[in-house]
Amino acid sequence: MFRRFSSTSTLPPTIRQLLSSPAPHASSIQVNGWVKSIRRQKRLAFAVISDGSSALGLQAVFRDPALAKSLTNGASVKLTGVLAASPGAGQAHELQVEAVDVLGECDPATYPIQKQALTVDYLRDHAHLRARTDPISAMLRVRDTALRSLHGYFEKQGFCYTHTPILTSNDCEGAGEAFRIAPVPDSSNKPEEFFSRPSFLTVSSQLHLEALASAISRVYTISPCFRAERSQTNRHLAEFWMLEAEWAFTQSVDDMCAVVEGAVKEVIRSAGADAAAREDLMAVVEKPWKRMTYTEAITELEKVSDTVSFAFTPAWGKALQSEHERWLADTLVGGPVFVTDYPATLKPFYMRLNDDGKTVACFDLLIPRVGELVGGSLREERLGHLEKALDAHSLSREEYGWYLDLRKFGGAPHGGFGMGFERLIGWLTGIENVRECIPMPRWAGRMLL
Amino acid sequence: MFRRFSSTSTLPPTIRQLLSSPAPHASSIQVNGWVKSIRRQKRLAFAVISDGSSALGLQAVFRDPALAKSLTNGASVKLTGVLAASPGAGQAHELQVEAVDVLGECDPATYPIQKQALTVDYLRDHAHLRARTDPISAMLRVRDTALRSLHGYFEKQGFCYTHTPILTSNDCEGAGEAFRIAPVPDSSNKPEEFFSRPSFLTVSSQLHLEALASAISRVYTISPCFRAERSQTNRHLAEFWMLEAEWAFTQSVDDMCAVVEGAVKEVIRSAGADAAAREDLMAVVEKPWKRMTYTEAITELEKVSDTVSFAFTPAWGKALQSEHERWLADTLVGGPVFVTDYPATLKPFYMRLNDDGKTVACFDLLIPRVGELVGGSLREERLGHLEKALDAHSLSREEYGWYLDLRKFGGAPHGGFGMGFERLIGWLTGIENVRECIPMPRWAGRMLL
Repeated sequence: MFRRFSSTSTLPPTIRQLLSSPAPHASSIQVNGWVKSIRRQKRLAFAVISDGSSALGLQAVFRDPALAKSLTNGASVKLTGVLAASPGAGQAHELQVEAVDVLGECDPATYPIQKQALTVDYLRDHAHLRARTDPISAMLRVRDTALRSLHGYFEKQGFCYTHTPILTSNDCEGAGEAFRIAPVPDSSNKPEEFFSRPSFLTVSSQLHLEALASAISRVYTISPCFRAERSQTNRHLAEFWMLEAEWAFTQSVDDMCAVVEGAVKEVIRSAGADAAAREDLMAVVEKPWKRMTYTEAITELEKVSDTVSFAFTPAWGKALQSEHERWLADTLVGGPVFVTDYPATLKPFYMRLNDDGKTVACFDLLIPRVGELVGGSLREERLGHLEKALDAHSLSREEYGWYLDLRKFGGAPHGGFGMGFERLIGWLTGIENVRECIPMPRWAGRMLL
Repeated sequence: MFRRFSSTSTLPPTIRQLLSSPAPHASSIQVNGWVKSIRRQKRLAFAVISDGSSALGLQAVFRDPALAKSLTNGASVKLTGVLAASPGAGQAHELQVEAVDVLGECDPATYPIQKQALTVDYLRDHAHLRARTDPISAMLRVRDTALRSLHGYFEKQGFCYTHTPILTSNDCEGAGEAFRIAPVPDSSNKPEEFFSRPSFLTVSSQLHLEALASAISRVYTISPCFRAERSQTNRHLAEFWMLEAEWAFTQSVDDMCAVVEGAVKEVIRSAGADAAAREDLMAVVEKPWKRMTYTEAITELEKVSDTVSFAFTPAWGKALQSEHERWLADTLVGGPVFVTDYPATLKPFYMRLNDDGKTVACFDLLIPRVGELVGGSLREERLGHLEKALDAHSLSREEYGWYLDLRKFGGAPHGGFGMGFERLIGWLTGIENVRECIPMPRWAGRMLL
């Protein structure tokens, strides 16, 4: 009655796996993929076959050009042949093709992904096909590498990988940019709140992570976040992914910066091993990253505001604008820089007040070209201070009762940060707009698929 | 102007790290954590300190009982002392405490998390504190272990870890249980669709993964999914996490089952190494898992339906009910079982029609006590078949135009599956309700924090 099978997985090697350990195969193998290009000569034909597992495709050689007759760009194929050392330049191995099986045809006349350069806008309009282009598939592989690298880093540091709620009643940043879930028809078809009260899409996992960090010390998540903001910059998406970490028993912004710096450097190193990173990035790994206070940053900005034409005049107590952040990273430092200890009035209620009574124990990591990549802080663990901060921000002590509980019962000094994952990918790859740093981007007015 | 710091991370070891490589420390160390229990004797005091990094806390010994005077359960502390071999039973090492620093007090009279057993409902009402209990913190560590194990498995199999959209215009399962995003006020404060058309929370990443698999062959995601269903079973949440994988060039349900079986066994092995898994689970790893068709399953169910009092009579063409699934796994097989080739009428439009014209090339993995853990199928890659299936399900060819494109241009045979992550955790831990398998559960009428 029952069929029995071996329980080991049976997937054949990908092209990446084949090329990275090309044991000599006397016998024929089968390779699946899509045709990326074809070159026909009188007595030979060549094709590059990719399965998307690596930037480099597999060079296929047809000693009988008739075999390649039915191939077109974009067609999916199964090739049978012998993997051998390649005499040609550009690849170490080639597949000497014995048999061709076209699995899925692709009409060159109507295929939307043509060989000539396609514009970014055209590819956004063809979101379901754009991963077939080299830049987007390379971006997808960099995301994979970066994610694995981050998971590895936080595991080594003793962090627990966790999942915080996407649906929440809290608006952590208090910015009023949270998407709201529509009421759902009840049994008599009247709209009612599914959760008995209004629910929103999370803008940050921080508060929930704090609850978990007050139990298991070190936690992080890589989670989708949502902001219903209409700004159409190259740094913002309505749906994006964020790495957020939170840990107990830290009392120093400098220590927190060291954790962030360690994490980002580890990602750069591994993405570099993946041959996706550029040289300027690799240089950044070798040096310790600069740190300066907000007050020092303002002083530097004021010094140059006569010669650099900023749209916004820098002044103590005012927010750093994008143009200021980029000047600090691109021009003043020429690399990543941590800016610490911003005025309390510029920051959310939960950041820990410094002894000066004016600034909070926080940091932003600014990087060249992008601006803010990471924001973090010590969290106010002193119950009295936190209650005053809630009042000052016109937030309800009752609504945040559970958050105050974390301080009332065995509270510990702690802190954390959030890193925009698509901005990190943009920095790693040199891609200018975060819309090309996520498989299927969403922004105001636009949601395909 | 700039301060410089070493860029290596500076976090001290967690208690888990300390206990797993307890290098002899002649000098004092500092350990942070929360007091789990205290035992006072005349000339000695003992306390167990946990930072949540492991099930086992650190045994702290106070040769001067006065040092332990200010300790209460739940307080957060920094202890200074010497880590030494322990003469007591139950632990290999102990901290001989020299100094105590209470970082956060915890009033035993009002602390909601008391030592005596607390009910599941009480802890659900105290979602912000329940990770401080042993069962929930153990569950969080099993989630972490299981996630890392799954990522490792799919990396070895050549899969790319990716992120699919949470906000979507598609309702993949067509079940009408998708949460909808409320319109957002426009500049003149009138409500309008933020994305210019209705948007929903994803119920499955499958269709998006198919688009990516048609470019980079093997992809998976671990993503939140949402169902606005009001059923209050111990297997359903309104917000849950799902592992979904999709890969090109597979043509066999048996091969797909092998991938699933390999993944789940790898998780069981690693969770077992974490001492969280039970013996019955470890036995399951050693054997190949049974496979049977839906038709065979119905035959078996019909055979016993006189003696087993099912609420629903099993019959070919009808859905397998939970009671049927559990009987198959718990009683007939006594372990996990793959049931394959269900009638097409019971399944969504995208599953590949078998040559019999009646069944589809799909599988469910049923496990003891839980029922369905995994559901997967080959996807219909034949354009004509897929168009007919859309018609048969009254779905619009235009709306699914992008999905048809994947077949029109270089389509390949492919398939994939989804696994409910909280159900997996329930199976691994023996926890009965998925509400205790996620840090902060959401279900109809209930969303704390």
